[in-house]
Amino acid sequence: MKKIYLDYAATTPVDPKVLKIIQPYFSKKYGNPSSLHTWGEEGKKAIERARGQVAGVLGCKSDEIIFTGCATESNNLALKGVAFQHRLARIEKQIATDHRSHIITSAIEHYCVLHTCEYLEKFGFSVTYLPVSKEGIVDPSDVKKAIKPNTILVSVMYANNEIGTIQPISEISKIIKKENKKRSQISNLKSQILFHTDAVQALNYLDCNVNRLGVDLLSLTGHKFYAPKGVGVLYVKKGTPLLPQQQGGGHERNMRAGTENVPGIVGFGEAIKLVTSDKRQETRRLTKLRDRLIDGVLKNIPDVILSGSRRERLPNSASFCVKNAEGESMLLKLDKKGIAASSGSACTSASLEPSHVLLACGIPAEVAHGSLRLSLGRGTSGKDINYVLKVLPKIIKDLRKMSPFNK
Amino acid sequence: MKKIYLDYAATTPVDPKVLKIIQPYFSKKYGNPSSLHTWGEEGKKAIERARGQVAGVLGCKSDEIIFTGCATESNNLALKGVAFQHRLARIEKQIATDHRSHIITSAIEHYCVLHTCEYLEKFGFSVTYLPVSKEGIVDPSDVKKAIKPNTILVSVMYANNEIGTIQPISEISKIIKKENKKRSQISNLKSQILFHTDAVQALNYLDCNVNRLGVDLLSLTGHKFYAPKGVGVLYVKKGTPLLPQQQGGGHERNMRAGTENVPGIVGFGEAIKLVTSDKRQETRRLTKLRDRLIDGVLKNIPDVILSGSRRERLPNSASFCVKNAEGESMLLKLDKKGIAASSGSACTSASLEPSHVLLACGIPAEVAHGSLRLSLGRGTSGKDINYVLKVLPKIIKDLRKMSPFNK
Repeated sequence: MKKIYLDYAATTPVDPKVLKIIQPYFSKKYGNPSSLHTWGEEGKKAIERARGQVAGVLGCKSDEIIFTGCATESNNLALKGVAFQHRLARIEKQIATDHRSHIITSAIEHYCVLHTCEYLEKFGFSVTYLPVSKEGIVDPSDVKKAIKPNTILVSVMYANNEIGTIQPISEISKIIKKENKKRSQISNLKSQILFHTDAVQALNYLDCNVNRLGVDLLSLTGHKFYAPKGVGVLYVKKGTPLLPQQQGGGHERNMRAGTENVPGIVGFGEAIKLVTSDKRQETRRLTKLRDRLIDGVLKNIPDVILSGSRRERLPNSASFCVKNAEGESMLLKLDKKGIAASSGSACTSASLEPSHVLLACGIPAEVAHGSLRLSLGRGTSGKDINYVLKVLPKIIKDLRKMSPFNK
Repeated sequence: MKKIYLDYAATTPVDPKVLKIIQPYFSKKYGNPSSLHTWGEEGKKAIERARGQVAGVLGCKSDEIIFTGCATESNNLALKGVAFQHRLARIEKQIATDHRSHIITSAIEHYCVLHTCEYLEKFGFSVTYLPVSKEGIVDPSDVKKAIKPNTILVSVMYANNEIGTIQPISEISKIIKKENKKRSQISNLKSQILFHTDAVQALNYLDCNVNRLGVDLLSLTGHKFYAPKGVGVLYVKKGTPLLPQQQGGGHERNMRAGTENVPGIVGFGEAIKLVTSDKRQETRRLTKLRDRLIDGVLKNIPDVILSGSRRERLPNSASFCVKNAEGESMLLKLDKKGIAASSGSACTSASLEPSHVLLACGIPAEVAHGSLRLSLGRGTSGKDINYVLKVLPKIIKDLRKMSPFNK
């Protein structure tokens, strides 16, 4: 049977070139990068090379890159690091800590941002969850309205993982910078608002230059761009007050303790180089395939809506709400036909709740249950799209026949 | 030149058998274990098989194993998870949080425990750092004396990473259980004391059955037993109140969010199986080599003392204080002769401070500066030991000639 993987937003295979390059770091060049001998030196050099590769792509300095274990860790570090640094400063200055610092985020963030915000709420921080348009996009003017004198952090994702919509990061940055300028002119409001973006889904296709984006913190994970699972990155702009969230040895300039995953980090560096070098070409190629897929689905299957903006979306993301069909059933049927798809975020696939992202776009719960995400990638060909367009209409037709909604 | 790696306590090479087994999980069986399709199912099954392998060795249930990114993360999760769960319970019950919960640990823990304790102190927890004997061992009766009505957690490592001394975990457990029994009889002291051990250095050689040890929480990391870097484990006894420290998706039964490092986890499972199967044989073999090394050093080099107990020590650990010689200089000279050694913990090797472990054993700072750790492992042969015993005396003699202390 044909095997077609259309779940690149969930994870990607490791690039064979990357896999080859990381091999020696398992059993040959295996030294602990902290060790003061040749074995250790080899590991250290490999990490620093990878750090340079990442910094090159983000347009920042090497010492602004912190390697972590995954994007979830990066996002937790960004949010908690800023929040608890604030709390600690207040404790140390013996200022009452009941003055609740404020964080702004969007309602369509990945759970690793949303649940971290909920955690912070439990510990006394206040959070505003910005709404999004029907197209799944944050309105920068909503950020402006949400800012309070005690706002310390704004976190808005660069591209949504479920519906692929691209958020106006540079515009939001401009608003924050304006507010920070105002604050610096008022003596009793010296603390600046920091800006974080989760760029996990964006790296492969969008400009991730941190200066052009205007962010203080940016999260990435390797397994979304053909590097191994188990390595993430947090970019931390020099001078950003951030309290480390994992204590131990002095790894990562005291910002993230723990023996470094050397092969994973080497793979991260190599993969980010490769994905950046063919970014333009892949963006062009996948945009065409994606459009053919979207058009084909909307044309050939009745009662299907595209989730999220048609224009402001990742080149590899096609996501739909199929009325009178249930997401999980579609996945199982597609899987039987050799097609890997998703009904939303992989991380929440075990949940039976309708997607918080689709609900935030104003899609009714019963329609959101029919969510289908097809995400394209390096291995996707025109033939794959043809095959999906051939089998999907029948799958949905069959499911609708069985659906209780249709009886 | 001969290449002799004697820094197995810092990290180990990945077992070739393990490396082979993890290969398919990079570029072939690459699905996200959370995904609801064949690709995802493959990853999920692989993780659950590994979880079973770990549970088998620890003598616990599979669902008591949480995969993390490293031992530092495991130890952070254990300590902060217990501490902040307590704090949260107090916040939710609206009890004043200024009643400082109390934690007991030892002065010779790895920094990922000590610095986590310091972090918790900053946020209002109180910590007792137990002393150790000159032999580098915690006295269980000191634990008993340190327990207060508000003690919530005891964390004592199983075997020390710098000097290899083995701590009396079961005896400490008995004391805690007795105290907990007393508490359960007094109605206003319902909260139980939890017991955590960092077993990172112990797994290869000592019994790590959690029931025999009597622990509620136990930390491991793969790269100390021939599994890849980037994967750790925290054993969490069923029913242990623990607040997750990394928020996000529902991975690891909601205890540790983040896409799983599938190849790393598969390698962890396979390596723990392999290291357990030849534990007895390796323990016998390495004990002999270690004793020959210790005896040879003490006999052939004047003014050298063995750090830590001779009897209660890991079979692979030989650590010394070399008077009138400086640790880092010895390492560089040994490295030039092809020998990888350490002057203590790899994680603190960049620091110029004398080891907190040696200071806790009552060794004066100027002697502690001459720390040398030689840790043996699977690749160590009798010939390696002969070679070290041949070159080390001359290295130390030369260094002492140059030492300002000798002039």
